[in-house]
Amino acid sequence: MAENVFAQRVEQIRNLGYDAVILTGTDPHASEYPAPRWKQVEWVSGFTGEAGDLVITQDHAGLWTDSRYFIQAGKQLAGTGIELHKTRVPEEVPIPAWLATRFTQKPVRIAFDGLCQSVAAVNELDNALKKAYGPDGYELIDRPDLLDEFWKDRPAVPHSPVMWLDEKTTGETRKEKLTWLRGEMKKAGCQSMFLTALDEIAWLLNVRGEDIDYNPYVISTLLVTPQVALWFVRNVEEVPDAKDVFNAGYNVLEEAMNERREECGRIFTDPSTLNWHTYKLIRNIFGDENIVFGTSPVILRKAVKNKKELDGIRRAFIEDGVAMENFLYWLETSVKGGARITEWEASEKMTSFRAAIEGYRGNSFENISAYGANAALPHYSTPREGSAEIKPRGLYLIDSGGQYTFGTTDITRTVPLGRCTRQEKEDYTLVLKAMIDLTLAVFPEGTAGCQIDALAREPLWRSLRNFGHGTGHGIGFYLGVHEGPQSIRQNFNSQPMLPGMVTSNEPGLYREGKHGIRHENIVLCREEGKSDFGRFLSFETLTCCHIETSIIKKKLLNEEERDWLRAYNRVVYRILKNRLAPEVSRWLKKKCR
Amino acid sequence: MAENVFAQRVEQIRNLGYDAVILTGTDPHASEYPAPRWKQVEWVSGFTGEAGDLVITQDHAGLWTDSRYFIQAGKQLAGTGIELHKTRVPEEVPIPAWLATRFTQKPVRIAFDGLCQSVAAVNELDNALKKAYGPDGYELIDRPDLLDEFWKDRPAVPHSPVMWLDEKTTGETRKEKLTWLRGEMKKAGCQSMFLTALDEIAWLLNVRGEDIDYNPYVISTLLVTPQVALWFVRNVEEVPDAKDVFNAGYNVLEEAMNERREECGRIFTDPSTLNWHTYKLIRNIFGDENIVFGTSPVILRKAVKNKKELDGIRRAFIEDGVAMENFLYWLETSVKGGARITEWEASEKMTSFRAAIEGYRGNSFENISAYGANAALPHYSTPREGSAEIKPRGLYLIDSGGQYTFGTTDITRTVPLGRCTRQEKEDYTLVLKAMIDLTLAVFPEGTAGCQIDALAREPLWRSLRNFGHGTGHGIGFYLGVHEGPQSIRQNFNSQPMLPGMVTSNEPGLYREGKHGIRHENIVLCREEGKSDFGRFLSFETLTCCHIETSIIKKKLLNEEERDWLRAYNRVVYRILKNRLAPEVSRWLKKKCR
Repeated sequence: MAENVFAQRVEQIRNLGYDAVILTGTDPHASEYPAPRWKQVEWVSGFTGEAGDLVITQDHAGLWTDSRYFIQAGKQLAGTGIELHKTRVPEEVPIPAWLATRFTQKPVRIAFDGLCQSVAAVNELDNALKKAYGPDGYELIDRPDLLDEFWKDRPAVPHSPVMWLDEKTTGETRKEKLTWLRGEMKKAGCQSMFLTALDEIAWLLNVRGEDIDYNPYVISTLLVTPQVALWFVRNVEEVPDAKDVFNAGYNVLEEAMNERREECGRIFTDPSTLNWHTYKLIRNIFGDENIVFGTSPVILRKAVKNKKELDGIRRAFIEDGVAMENFLYWLETSVKGGARITEWEASEKMTSFRAAIEGYRGNSFENISAYGANAALPHYSTPREGSAEIKPRGLYLIDSGGQYTFGTTDITRTVPLGRCTRQEKEDYTLVLKAMIDLTLAVFPEGTAGCQIDALAREPLWRSLRNFGHGTGHGIGFYLGVHEGPQSIRQNFNSQPMLPGMVTSNEPGLYREGKHGIRHENIVLCREEGKSDFGRFLSFETLTCCHIETSIIKKKLLNEEERDWLRAYNRVVYRILKNRLAPEVSRWLKKKCR
Repeated sequence: MAENVFAQRVEQIRNLGYDAVILTGTDPHASEYPAPRWKQVEWVSGFTGEAGDLVITQDHAGLWTDSRYFIQAGKQLAGTGIELHKTRVPEEVPIPAWLATRFTQKPVRIAFDGLCQSVAAVNELDNALKKAYGPDGYELIDRPDLLDEFWKDRPAVPHSPVMWLDEKTTGETRKEKLTWLRGEMKKAGCQSMFLTALDEIAWLLNVRGEDIDYNPYVISTLLVTPQVALWFVRNVEEVPDAKDVFNAGYNVLEEAMNERREECGRIFTDPSTLNWHTYKLIRNIFGDENIVFGTSPVILRKAVKNKKELDGIRRAFIEDGVAMENFLYWLETSVKGGARITEWEASEKMTSFRAAIEGYRGNSFENISAYGANAALPHYSTPREGSAEIKPRGLYLIDSGGQYTFGTTDITRTVPLGRCTRQEKEDYTLVLKAMIDLTLAVFPEGTAGCQIDALAREPLWRSLRNFGHGTGHGIGFYLGVHEGPQSIRQNFNSQPMLPGMVTSNEPGLYREGKHGIRHENIVLCREEGKSDFGRFLSFETLTCCHIETSIIKKKLLNEEERDWLRAYNRVVYRILKNRLAPEVSRWLKKKCR
C-alpha cells in the first residue's frame, strides 16, 4: 500500500537518531515552485500541495500547511501517520514554537537540510530554541541533502536550455541593470552583492530557463562584484554581449569566491532567500563582518515595469484574451450542445488554446478548472483522473495563465453554463461589484495595498459575505506569476503601490458544497493626476476578456459600476473582434452587448 | 519685549552647563493636556500648542512639533531664537536621532526632567545615544523639576475636589474593576500593577476630578496589590464604599511601597506612561527582576463601553444635540439678521448653551470656532482678542464637545451662512459623502480602523482631494475626548474595532486661504450580524444634530447616501423637536426636511 511507503520513509528518517528532523517544501533559493529534486516533503509524505513543511520527531510526524490545503492534506496524509498542523489560522503554532515546547531531555538535537532553509528561518528557529532550552540546551545540525541516502532515484539539479532576452524586450541591458545594482550597493555601504533568488537573477541577467514548472527561471546564484558578475549555474556556455559576466558551476562557489575575496569587499545579501548552508560557506570565506543583510533592491525595481516590458505585457494580455475567448466559446457551445466534458479536459483545452500563441512558453501556474462545488476550493487541483463532468447548469470557474516571451498572464473567469440559483447570481454580481470598485479606485501616492483592500471587500461585507484569500498579488514580466513586494490584502504590508506595478484584482466568494466564484483582472498602477492635495494614482485594466453579464442582478450594481462594465466589454470586443474566427467573434459580440 | 523673556530663559537653561537639555510638553503621567505646572515648554518658549518638545544645546534651541502647529509655532517662536523642527512629516528627524548626530566631544552630557519623560521615551533616547557615541560616550542625567530654580511662580500640583461615580452610572463598581484587574495580572504572571495613566486610574476607581483642563482626571498614581489599592493622591479624604483602597500622598510612594514590598510580588506597569524618575524609584524598591513591562489591559477594557455607560453616552449626545441646535439657530438667525459676531463670541455662546445642561462639567477640548479661511487650519485656535467676524457668506466651522457626568461628546458641524462658491458646495458634499460611507460600513470582526479608513477617503480621492488628519479617534466615558487603543486612520494600528467602542468619524477638506470643512459624527461599533462567513460589525451614529442640506450638490451623492441623510435628519428632528423652544423646533423642522 502506498501509505506504507510514506510511513516507512518517516521511520527511515527517525532512524537517523535525531530528536527532530525538519524538511521544507522549498529549494535552495526559497522558490515558490521547487524543481522535482526538492520535492522532499512530497517524497516523504505523499503530500503534493505547493506549500508544506515536515517535522519528524521520535514520537510524532507533522505536516505544516495553510488553509488552501487542509482538505487535500487530510486525504493525502491518511494512513501515513503524519498529522496535519494548520498554519495561517488564529490558533496556529508555527514550527519553531512547536519545537520549543516539545522536548524535556537536553540537549535537544534537531537536524535540517540547510540548503532548503533560509537564514531568516534558521535564525527564527535558533531564537525560539535558545529561549526554550538555553544556549547549551540544543543543537541545530545542518545536514544538506539528508534524504540522498534513502531517495535513491532523487532527480538531479535541472539544467534546461536558457533563453536570452534582448533589450527590445526587456527595455534595459544586463549591463545597465548591473550598473544600477552596483550603485545600490554603494548606497548600502557595500561593494558586492550575492543574489540567490531565481527571479531576481533572471531579471538582472535578462535570461529565462525551463528548470522549474511554471516559472521560467535558471537555477543558479550570482555574485556581483565591482568588476564582474560570477554566475554559478549548470551548463550555460556563454553569456552574450557581456564581457564581465562569467559562468562557474552551480556548486563551485568556494573556489571562485576565494579568488575574489579582496575584490568583493562588503557583500550585501538577502537573508529571506539565502539558504543557511550557503550562508555558512560565504561566512567562512568573507567573515561575518563583511556580510550585510538586507532586502534585495532588485525586488522593488523589477516590480516597477518599464515601457518596453509594459508593451509586451499589454500584448500578452491581448493574446491571452484571444485564447480565453476561444476557450469560453468552445466550452459554452460544447456543454450547451450536450457534449460530456470533464474539468480535466477543459483544462487541457485551455492549455491548447494558449499553446497556439507564438511565444508561449508554458502555463504560469497549474490551471484551476473547477465546476460547481469544486470551485468552492479556492486552490482546487483538477485531478487528471476522475475529474467532474461540467454540466449545463450552475457555474464553472477557470483560473489560468500563460508564460510568453513577452509577458506573464493570470486570469480568472467564472461563467454560467445554464440555469443558476438566485444565490449564485447574487454572489456572482457582488464579486463583480467588488472587482469593479477596486478597479475604479483612486488613491494618493504612498498608499499601500492593505489600505485599499477594503474597497474590494466592502461590497461583499455589506451583505455579510467575505473571502479568505488576498485580493491581489504582483505579477512579473515573463517571470513569476506571484511576485512582491506589493500586495492587496488585509495583512499589513507597508509597500506603497507605484506606477508601473502590475497586480491582480481577484475578489471571490466560496460556499462549501455549493459553488465558488472569482473574477480576476490584472491591473496596472498608473498616475491619475496631481492636485493641491498631491499626486494620485489609479489602475488601468490589462486583462482583455469579456465578463458575462447574463446572470447579473442589475440592481446590485450602481450606475458607475454598470458604466464601467459596459465600457469594458465594448473595449474587449473592439480589440479582439478581428483576431477571432467569425463564429467566435459573432458570439463575443452578443456577449459584449 | 516678550521675545526677550524667552530668549533669556533659554540662556538660563544653557547656563546649567549641559550639552543638551530636553523639556517635554507633557506631565509625569504622559497626559495629552498637562496642568499649568507642567507647561514647561510654554514657559520657556512661549509656544502654546498642545504638543511640543524642546531641546536646548549650547549652540541651538529647537522645538519639535507636528503639522497642526507649524504656523502657530512659526509665529510664537519669532524672536526667541528657538527653531522649529517638524514632526510627522517624511523628512522628520526625531529628537533621539537629532541628538545622535549633534556632538563630537565626549562624553555628551544630556539632562532631562525624568518626571516628564516616559520610560519608553528614555529607552529610545538611550539606544540612539549608545549607538552614536558608544556605551561610555554619553551621560543621561535625570533632573526632576529642573525648571524650579528659574520658574519662581511655578504652579503647584493641582488638587481640585473629586467626584465619585456610582454603579448606576458606570455599570461596574470599583471592587469589580479591581477584581478584574487582579485577574489580568495573574494572566500576565504578576501579582500587582502600578498605574500611572490618569484616565486609567479615573476609570478604575470610578472617580473624576478637575485637575486638568478638559480632562476630568485626578492627578495621582495607583498601586494595586493582591490585597489593597494604594492611591497616591493629594488631599482626597476617603474612598467611599471601598475598604481596601487607601490613600497616600502624591509623592510618598517610597515609604508605602517599601512597606508592601513582599505583598506586591511581580509588578506589572506600562512603560508608555510610567515616567523615568518614578521608574527608578520603584526599581530601587522592587528590583528590575520584579517589574514587568507591558501594555496596560485597562486601555482596551475601558474603550469597550458597557450598557450603563452607553446609556449615559446616548443621553449625552442628545443633550449635546440640543445645545448644538440652539447654537446653530442662534448663529444663523443672528448672522443673517445682520448682527456682528466674532468667532470668539460664537465660541463663548456655544459654551454657554452646553453649560446650561444639567451635569455639564466643562468642555472636552478647546472649541474650534473658525470662519472662512481660518477653518482651513484643522486645529485653529480661536483667539480671544481680534478673532474674525462671521459674515453672512461662505462657511463656518465649529468643532466642540462637552464633559457631562454621564458622558463625553465631540462634534463638528460646518454650516453655510449665506452664498457659497461652487467649490465650497462640492467640497462640502464630498466630505459629507465620505462621512456617510464610513457610517454605512460593514466589516468582519477582527478588522482594524486602518483597514476601513479608505472607505471615508475614496469619495475624496476620486476627485484628487484628501485630508491630512486621522478620520477617527476613540472617545472616553466622561473621560478623555481622545483615547485609544482603536483609531481610524491610515497609520497601521492592529487594534480591531470591537462592539462597544465609541469612535469619531470626521473626514475633512482644507483649502489654504479659502475654506475648511469637517463633518464629525460619533459612532458606536455594534454587531451587525452573523453568516456563513463569520461575525460582522457596523456603526450606529450617536451624534444627534442635523446636517445642513441646502448646499449639497445632489448628483455627488448616490441613492443610498441620500437615503441615509434623509433618515438621519428625520431621526434628529424626531428626538429633539420637543426639547427645543418652539421657534428653534420650527427652524429645525425646515432644516430636516
